[in-house]
Amino acid sequence: MKDRYISIRHHTEKICAPLQLEDYVVQPMPDASPPKWHLAHTTWFWEEFILSQYLASYKRFHPHYAFLFNSYYESVGERVLRLHRGNMSRPTVAEILAYRAYVDEHMLKLLDNIPQEAQSLVELGLHHEQQHQELLYTDIKYILGHNPLFPSYQPDFRETPRVETDHRYMEIPAGIYSIGYTGTGFSFDNEHAPHTVQLQDFSIRKSLVTNGEYIEFIKAGGYSNPLLWYSDGWSWVKQNTVDSPLYWYPAGDQWQRYSLAGLETVNPSEPVTHISFYEAAAFAEWKGLRLPTEFEWEAASGNFTWGQRWEHVNSAYLPYPNYQRPAGAVGEYNGKFMINQMVLRGASVATPAGHSRNTYRNFFYPQQRWQFNGIRLCKK
Amino acid sequence: MKDRYISIRHHTEKICAPLQLEDYVVQPMPDASPPKWHLAHTTWFWEEFILSQYLASYKRFHPHYAFLFNSYYESVGERVLRLHRGNMSRPTVAEILAYRAYVDEHMLKLLDNIPQEAQSLVELGLHHEQQHQELLYTDIKYILGHNPLFPSYQPDFRETPRVETDHRYMEIPAGIYSIGYTGTGFSFDNEHAPHTVQLQDFSIRKSLVTNGEYIEFIKAGGYSNPLLWYSDGWSWVKQNTVDSPLYWYPAGDQWQRYSLAGLETVNPSEPVTHISFYEAAAFAEWKGLRLPTEFEWEAASGNFTWGQRWEHVNSAYLPYPNYQRPAGAVGEYNGKFMINQMVLRGASVATPAGHSRNTYRNFFYPQQRWQFNGIRLCKK
Amino acid sequence: MKDRYISIRHHTEKICAPLQLEDYVVQPMPDASPPKWHLAHTTWFWEEFILSQYLASYKRFHPHYAFLFNSYYESVGERVLRLHRGNMSRPTVAEILAYRAYVDEHMLKLLDNIPQEAQSLVELGLHHEQQHQELLYTDIKYILGHNPLFPSYQPDFRETPRVETDHRYMEIPAGIYSIGYTGTGFSFDNEHAPHTVQLQDFSIRKSLVTNGEYIEFIKAGGYSNPLLWYSDGWSWVKQNTVDSPLYWYPAGDQWQRYSLAGLETVNPSEPVTHISFYEAAAFAEWKGLRLPTEFEWEAASGNFTWGQRWEHVNSAYLPYPNYQRPAGAVGEYNGKFMINQMVLRGASVATPAGHSRNTYRNFFYPQQRWQFNGIRLCKK
Amino acid sequence: MKDRYISIRHHTEKICAPLQLEDYVVQPMPDASPPKWHLAHTTWFWEEFILSQYLASYKRFHPHYAFLFNSYYESVGERVLRLHRGNMSRPTVAEILAYRAYVDEHMLKLLDNIPQEAQSLVELGLHHEQQHQELLYTDIKYILGHNPLFPSYQPDFRETPRVETDHRYMEIPAGIYSIGYTGTGFSFDNEHAPHTVQLQDFSIRKSLVTNGEYIEFIKAGGYSNPLLWYSDGWSWVKQNTVDSPLYWYPAGDQWQRYSLAGLETVNPSEPVTHISFYEAAAFAEWKGLRLPTEFEWEAASGNFTWGQRWEHVNSAYLPYPNYQRPAGAVGEYNGKFMINQMVLRGASVATPAGHSRNTYRNFFYPQQRWQFNGIRLCKK
Repeated sequence: MKDRYISIRHHTEKICAPLQLEDYVVQPMPDASPPKWHLAHTTWFWEEFILSQYLASYKRFHPHYAFLFNSYYESVGERVLRLHRGNMSRPTVAEILAYRAYVDEHMLKLLDNIPQEAQSLVELGLHHEQQHQELLYTDIKYILGHNPLFPSYQPDFRETPRVETDHRYMEIPAGIYSIGYTGTGFSFDNEHAPHTVQLQDFSIRKSLVTNGEYIEFIKAGGYSNPLLWYSDGWSWVKQNTVDSPLYWYPAGDQWQRYSLAGLETVNPSEPVTHISFYEAAAFAEWKGLRLPTEFEWEAASGNFTWGQRWEHVNSAYLPYPNYQRPAGAVGEYNGKFMINQMVLRGASVATPAGHSRNTYRNFFYPQQRWQFNGIRLCKK
Repeated sequence: MKDRYISIRHHTEKICAPLQLEDYVVQPMPDASPPKWHLAHTTWFWEEFILSQYLASYKRFHPHYAFLFNSYYESVGERVLRLHRGNMSRPTVAEILAYRAYVDEHMLKLLDNIPQEAQSLVELGLHHEQQHQELLYTDIKYILGHNPLFPSYQPDFRETPRVETDHRYMEIPAGIYSIGYTGTGFSFDNEHAPHTVQLQDFSIRKSLVTNGEYIEFIKAGGYSNPLLWYSDGWSWVKQNTVDSPLYWYPAGDQWQRYSLAGLETVNPSEPVTHISFYEAAAFAEWKGLRLPTEFEWEAASGNFTWGQRWEHVNSAYLPYPNYQRPAGAVGEYNGKFMINQMVLRGASVATPAGHSRNTYRNFFYPQQRWQFNGIRLCKK
Repeated sequence: MKDRYISIRHHTEKICAPLQLEDYVVQPMPDASPPKWHLAHTTWFWEEFILSQYLASYKRFHPHYAFLFNSYYESVGERVLRLHRGNMSRPTVAEILAYRAYVDEHMLKLLDNIPQEAQSLVELGLHHEQQHQELLYTDIKYILGHNPLFPSYQPDFRETPRVETDHRYMEIPAGIYSIGYTGTGFSFDNEHAPHTVQLQDFSIRKSLVTNGEYIEFIKAGGYSNPLLWYSDGWSWVKQNTVDSPLYWYPAGDQWQRYSLAGLETVNPSEPVTHISFYEAAAFAEWKGLRLPTEFEWEAASGNFTWGQRWEHVNSAYLPYPNYQRPAGAVGEYNGKFMINQMVLRGASVATPAGHSRNTYRNFFYPQQRWQFNGIRLCKK
Repeated sequence: MKDRYISIRHHTEKICAPLQLEDYVVQPMPDASPPKWHLAHTTWFWEEFILSQYLASYKRFHPHYAFLFNSYYESVGERVLRLHRGNMSRPTVAEILAYRAYVDEHMLKLLDNIPQEAQSLVELGLHHEQQHQELLYTDIKYILGHNPLFPSYQPDFRETPRVETDHRYMEIPAGIYSIGYTGTGFSFDNEHAPHTVQLQDFSIRKSLVTNGEYIEFIKAGGYSNPLLWYSDGWSWVKQNTVDSPLYWYPAGDQWQRYSLAGLETVNPSEPVTHISFYEAAAFAEWKGLRLPTEFEWEAASGNFTWGQRWEHVNSAYLPYPNYQRPAGAVGEYNGKFMINQMVLRGASVATPAGHSRNTYRNFFYPQQRWQFNGIRLCKK
């Protein structure tokens, strides 16, 4: 556990290594956070939930940091509004790195002799840190991709390690399927309790929808035909004058897009990404097909490769039967978001290795686009 | 069918009979519509989908009314923004009543000899008109209940015809339950296709939550404890400084409320109403209980009396397996709203007799409160 | 005074005579008020400031009307927010007319024997009622002119009784000029105290800018050249996508406009109207000329005819030297608006006969357009 | 001129010396700009208006910087919206300092042999840079003063170098006074043309209003009495729940405030600062006194000491008689802001030495508070 702690904490800082100091500070939209905030918030998590509970002699690094770097835990004190994170020039990056070092030093001491009852919280902290590693990638992309100079993050970053070429559909038979995590490793409370659901037969595509297919949708007037859209999706398109995926820019008769490697021509054979649930649903409607539910996705997941994009499913983020919110602040981790959001399944190119699994339930609002998400189609 | 047409159309106008002419015109919030708009819009539905399709000689009453009174059918032309309905002093109420008479006259002619293929559309039109009858009650309540003079609608209107006194829970066994409409009468497309779901055992209360119980929640600080609320619900409470159900006003150490009969003291034994999904969920959380899902509700509905309040369930409004949007404009009736909304089951004191059934799926946004809704609790 | 009272009160109702009852109720924008509100507010003024002070036995018509129909007098109690006036279906028009009759009856009794100290307040009340007569015209125009059916107010209403054909400039010599009201009749506090100002020589046009000239400005790209506009004006143009005067609609290669007589082709020889201060200033800049100050206007006013349009002047609405706010609620009449607004001089086709004078200071925000305003140019 | 150039350019960077790198990046409100933006924008001014016009061989430092660092000159190309300046992490501070060095190097070359016709533009550039030096102080104060850690800028910074103790009024006789700049040095176009105005006699206080006096206003309920406020001012107070000057925080029965030296107890004998025009006017009204006009201020300025605070005057920012906008982009410097703003006279502790004079016209919107402004009272 100590080695994993060291390795995961180190990886967080490594993600930030290509940044200029100025990049750590800004917050170009409320959904994204400044990198320096991620560095501090993940550190606060250890301090708040582990060190101040289980390390007897522990003295907090700074009296105000709990206030500054709490993300949304109402039960542990006031928090800085998400909208204002980008205005906080202090503490500086150097101070936050000192904070990280201080907390790491104490965590390593504690991990030498970790009490039994703290172990699952440490496990949660590691997965929490990994979730923020993914957010670091997406928020850094937003920061650099909305800078008028379009600086690259890493010139050799490949957002699509593997191009999919088999676009056939697989048939999945009707039946009773087991849903939710049943293994012995770590899993989030929202994957519990495991239970069975009855599914009808359906077909699901082996590959994700490609940029090329999505360009067809654009050319066919997909963004100007209200009948393809949910009512709220259509309002969103009109109010925001959306006409292409996030990070796409017209360039003559082609499209360019910002990737973490910099500006590049859209490659038609790569899977489309940075589209909202609304766009995914409208695309499926235009095809005369549909998105899978999260249960269909989970039932079929063993038969296809996944992991390059978070996949939009047509399931609202709701509790499973017999779901129980854990007691205390950790109970705010997932349960209080189970309204107004849609589930995404799978993993993305930004997800840390080993972090996801086929029962993992990610969730975002239907208009959000800054994650590396994608579309998988379903028939019947 | 002709008699039902006459009776339903007449009933719409009867609901408006207690109004002053000025009451027909205003729109105090975007979700509510002016009564005169409801009178015209229901009439436009007959003109647009029946008369102009099936009555050969039919001449529209006015060339602009299709533009003015289309609610949201994108496929049949431009519509007046909902927000602006309350600014349209013309056409006058008298002109709209003439429009109703003109369309009725032609409908009766057509109904003498109605083509086979139009019959299901007529049926839909009747149910559509009944849905607007219910909206007329709730919108009229909003208009009068937000007037500083609090005029009564009908001094003898009883919002709770029947006080419930049996607050016990019934046990419902685990099993495979049939969901969705399987009868031969009319039903909406969102109740299809019928299918089975697997449920675990649970208990559900015979009675709705009362005003008295809800006052306990208020006194216990329910509106100031963030841990009881969904994250979005808590933001809604803070932004709107919500501290009680809609239409409630503090009066010394008691509560008063506006009912369609006028201002009155809150009766603790009547079922609470005009609370959002957020409030219903927070109340259940405070009780250590939960709301049923729509499937649990439907499975259990035969064992309890219902019909005074639309009941919040913890199910997002999503399509059933094998759901098909009907072709054409009618396909916009339900399908395009299957995002961001929560289901309500049952019926309310404002629902026309015979309009609802235990498979009926009503749906509203989780913050909306102006319908006659209520709370039924679930255990385990 | 009694005869003037009767005649002015009667005139207010006469302005409303062509309306349908529904037209009295709506408020399509915050700056305009429903006609029924004007009818009630002017009546409240008599009740609040005269009857309840000077008629010993007087009993208010309704206990809540002071609350409902106070426009902005903070010192006499809470007021209904301007924005919400259009949501108040009650009191009805009939009730408000009864209120008028009741107050008139008591006023006539009082006027038989009016105390000396009340006379100037009665005078103020008459001028106040006349100001609302003008607002009735402009607000009615806004209500009908924003209705998709464009109903006419009076088919023979002429917004330009007199076409001006002499477009020459008059030279006004430098000198010390007397400013402000010095007569013995009624005048508003904002015209005091009379004083002198030093002016340089300038030239001013005999006629107002015509629609034809304004169309030239539009054709020359006036609305898309930021260098012609004040910085705030340019933001206003962009945010509201303004490209022509209020009530103008393109019709092929011509312009149509809504007048109180109905939709009609823009007549190039009539004076342009319904343009904001920003537009007036941009037009003058485009001409290489300027707007007069209010002092220049007043000094020159004896040499030209005026009274069809309120004329934009390049003077902020500020107090004259030695200006004193009157004590009490009447002190809120003008003084508290002496910030952020620009002066307009003259009178308009909607101004009651005898109401204005060449020292009268009207004032609006620089973006407001719904009054009958116009442009007079100045040289040097 | 070369020495002045070096000295002024150097001073800009010196103001930033106490900052951490992170402080250069953020923009906590639209009115303030990130320090790094000021460093770049002032440099762009030299490049755009001098080097690219007058230095034949000059090659711009970076092709996109003109786009990024134009503040509001519509005539020289598109600009980055002010609201977004705080999202631009790139170019970095180091890159901007390199930009400064590059432009300075070329400017020094040009200044060796500066063409006659460029000299007044160089003079303007120096004064422009000094205006941004003052904005740097106020924007830095806003950035640090809105950070939850309240870091000090310079522990020994004194915002009030000189406490005033003589609170008597001086009488200024009526007469014709000369207004506007008549000297031979630099002055802005808005100080022209010099002209005379007629003033009545008045009295003006030798000293600025103190914190102690302002605390009396607060204690007397000044912020809750609408009759003291302009109508727009009262709306501003209510909407923003204003109850004290900017940077003031209640601390038990005392007030604390953030100064550039850090948090400190409010000193009652220092002049109040960071109050809007609305607050200044309400304070004067509460005292039964008034603010001077800008002409009164200028006429009296020789008789009192000034320069610690920009002084609110009751004059809208309007052109002087015979004012001419200069041709070209420089014409956008002042003229296009002559609407909706109020004049401030004097200078502040943040104004560079020698930059202001008694004819200088500063201007801000009536709600703005982040400059070092203050109140001087006037009688009669």
